[in-house]
Amino acid sequence: MPISANNTNRKSWIEVPVDSDFPIQNIPFGVFITKDDVITIGTRIGDCAIDMGALQQLNYFEGIELTDDMFMQDTLNDFISDGKKTWRLVRNRLAELFDVTNPKLRDNKEHREIVIFNVKYIEMQLPVLIGDYTDFFSNKEHALNVGKIYRDPEHLLSPNWLHIPVAYHGRSSSIIPSGIPVHRPMGQTLPKGEKTPVFGPSRLVDFELEMAFITTDVNVMGENIPINEAEDYIFGMVLLNDWSARDIQKWEYEPLGPFLSKNFATSISPWIITMDALEPFRTKGPKQDPSPLPYLQQKGKNNFDINLEVAIQPENEEPTIVSKSNVKNMYWSMNQQLTHHTSNGCRVNSGDMMGSGTISGPTPDTFGSLLELTFGGKMPIQLNDGSERKFLNDDDTVIMKGFSKNNGVRIGFGELSTKLLPPYVRK
Amino acid sequence: MPISANNTNRKSWIEVPVDSDFPIQNIPFGVFITKDDVITIGTRIGDCAIDMGALQQLNYFEGIELTDDMFMQDTLNDFISDGKKTWRLVRNRLAELFDVTNPKLRDNKEHREIVIFNVKYIEMQLPVLIGDYTDFFSNKEHALNVGKIYRDPEHLLSPNWLHIPVAYHGRSSSIIPSGIPVHRPMGQTLPKGEKTPVFGPSRLVDFELEMAFITTDVNVMGENIPINEAEDYIFGMVLLNDWSARDIQKWEYEPLGPFLSKNFATSISPWIITMDALEPFRTKGPKQDPSPLPYLQQKGKNNFDINLEVAIQPENEEPTIVSKSNVKNMYWSMNQQLTHHTSNGCRVNSGDMMGSGTISGPTPDTFGSLLELTFGGKMPIQLNDGSERKFLNDDDTVIMKGFSKNNGVRIGFGELSTKLLPPYVRK
Repeated sequence: MPISANNTNRKSWIEVPVDSDFPIQNIPFGVFITKDDVITIGTRIGDCAIDMGALQQLNYFEGIELTDDMFMQDTLNDFISDGKKTWRLVRNRLAELFDVTNPKLRDNKEHREIVIFNVKYIEMQLPVLIGDYTDFFSNKEHALNVGKIYRDPEHLLSPNWLHIPVAYHGRSSSIIPSGIPVHRPMGQTLPKGEKTPVFGPSRLVDFELEMAFITTDVNVMGENIPINEAEDYIFGMVLLNDWSARDIQKWEYEPLGPFLSKNFATSISPWIITMDALEPFRTKGPKQDPSPLPYLQQKGKNNFDINLEVAIQPENEEPTIVSKSNVKNMYWSMNQQLTHHTSNGCRVNSGDMMGSGTISGPTPDTFGSLLELTFGGKMPIQLNDGSERKFLNDDDTVIMKGFSKNNGVRIGFGELSTKLLPPYVRK
Repeated sequence: MPISANNTNRKSWIEVPVDSDFPIQNIPFGVFITKDDVITIGTRIGDCAIDMGALQQLNYFEGIELTDDMFMQDTLNDFISDGKKTWRLVRNRLAELFDVTNPKLRDNKEHREIVIFNVKYIEMQLPVLIGDYTDFFSNKEHALNVGKIYRDPEHLLSPNWLHIPVAYHGRSSSIIPSGIPVHRPMGQTLPKGEKTPVFGPSRLVDFELEMAFITTDVNVMGENIPINEAEDYIFGMVLLNDWSARDIQKWEYEPLGPFLSKNFATSISPWIITMDALEPFRTKGPKQDPSPLPYLQQKGKNNFDINLEVAIQPENEEPTIVSKSNVKNMYWSMNQQLTHHTSNGCRVNSGDMMGSGTISGPTPDTFGSLLELTFGGKMPIQLNDGSERKFLNDDDTVIMKGFSKNNGVRIGFGELSTKLLPPYVRK
């Protein structure tokens, strides 16, 4: 089925600001609460949020097979379960409906007022109920940078790294959308040179610049997915900030991996950008040497050219961009990640989320965490207000952005903005 | 509020076989499908399953504040959310209703036929929707045994082990109830002496004898729970088999912990035994030396005397008991685990599950995994049919049981029985 929604010549009757992340070629999916306190599934064009629940009630999805309340729900899980064919039909329909040449909704003021809101009057929610969250470690530059800080110089990568898209399970309960603040975590750490740990606020709170993808129902228990089918199960992507407490991490992570150093919070951007919308930005990934085992061998363009940036904004100051990276830096592709994840029969369901791991580039200005940007806290970075950071201060806001651009079309992820508050005080 | 359901003198008008795990003093909670294909919440006395949805419709919970459909649901999450006071009121009510001296339901044949089924006609389901599953590593004997196989003899325990209840995140999507078979997983392993991994069926599939506890809604994000409050948030316990593929685990686990070696399946027993029912079996845990940090210091009896056993049953043969252990061997208590888990503000919700880690005892016949029982596969164990096992064969069934007993009352967990099938073949 053609992706007519991607037509680069199409314009919308909704005004789209220059350099908006959300032209009519994007058509992302999300969940929001309207100013009338109704929760709905919706999309976005320019600065307009579009209530797809209301659109469905007004019959604008006629002819597409959907359950009656498909978009009058508080998560996208059921819609995502319906599969790629339905996603594409709905996205194409939305593109046609908001096409500048289509008078149907454009000239119906009553309907427009029911369906369209300025984004400043809505409150974005988590787009899916995330049953399980996996975080990969699939960027070689990041793995090497971490190796330089923590590992022996002869073995910067663990022996399995070039053979396996290494991953661990994250915590679903602590995933929050952009805008929800995070408290500096308390935890056990081992002070340098000491043999006994102490308990207190983490001193080394960090961000990690990641992307994540959201799956549909992938398999039954026991079933593996061949790599040439993997992309059929990927709905779309979001920005992800994998909050990390480096001092807690260092003391706890051996032998079973990161736990409390990560599970206090994971932030994601609220609009899921579909793989269909990202299709024009496919690109080749880095050469894989050694060649992976046959079940992980892929052909063609499996990476995506998505520009990323991170800024730190101190309280009452302007943000400073501290890193610029790109998703095409990923060594292991999403298809390889999902194939590996199901290679043992592990069940993957609609709404499950898989993070990429920190996406760093080859040069210091492209590193995706303060751990890397400051070489383990040894070399502070300068912010525009003259202050320095080794790690994050209380009341700093971390802002991540991502977008792709070619043929005059910019498809973006909006903003993932999260403020770090002081430790929580129990009432 | 007194736990009148624990009255050791009480007898039921339902016949309870000698040595049943489910006398009227147990009153566990579970979810099952009746032979009429209705899913309901229920309890069990002797060999009778009791439909609590039907009981509620017939007004037998009158006077207890419950939503109208509390027990007509397919998970216990909402009931568990209601908190300890409600759990206790409901459990006490059930004990009174089935007390031999109470004619109300005993003498109402019509109601009895609606409410009571022989357990052989029902199909047990997962009792809760498990949002997040954490697995601890809290038994010192197991940690030492694993250390002897994998670590340097001078440092059998990782440096943090005596300070932190070490844990990692498991996979919720692969948790299954007793009776559902598991397929031998495929995966990457590194053959001995080789530098390049291979892909194929795991050759070293193992069980791990564990318990798990289920929580109610514990906290808001950022909030920590003091150790003296932790037990208020624990609803009950189940048996857990943490299926493990040792060859996959060895190759993948560094640096981020176990992943595909564990997430192909985790089995649990379907009846949740409440902490109220286990109250008479409290006991002291092992002395903790060094003393943990103040936030983990506890007083009184925080362990439970629960006998455990594992049997292996080859196809068409009798089971052989291969291990007998006890939950009182746990070094870190459940209260310490939950307190540590929330110490960084990690959100814990109703229906979340936390596994203990393998529970081994001090002697070889008490080890909770084949890895330990066979010293890493070096010394096979003998089964009653004359066959040997280093690890599990296809078509072996692993059966775990657990019970407590004193003052003439036996409170048991029933059976966790899971067959290992050959690798899944995709259609």
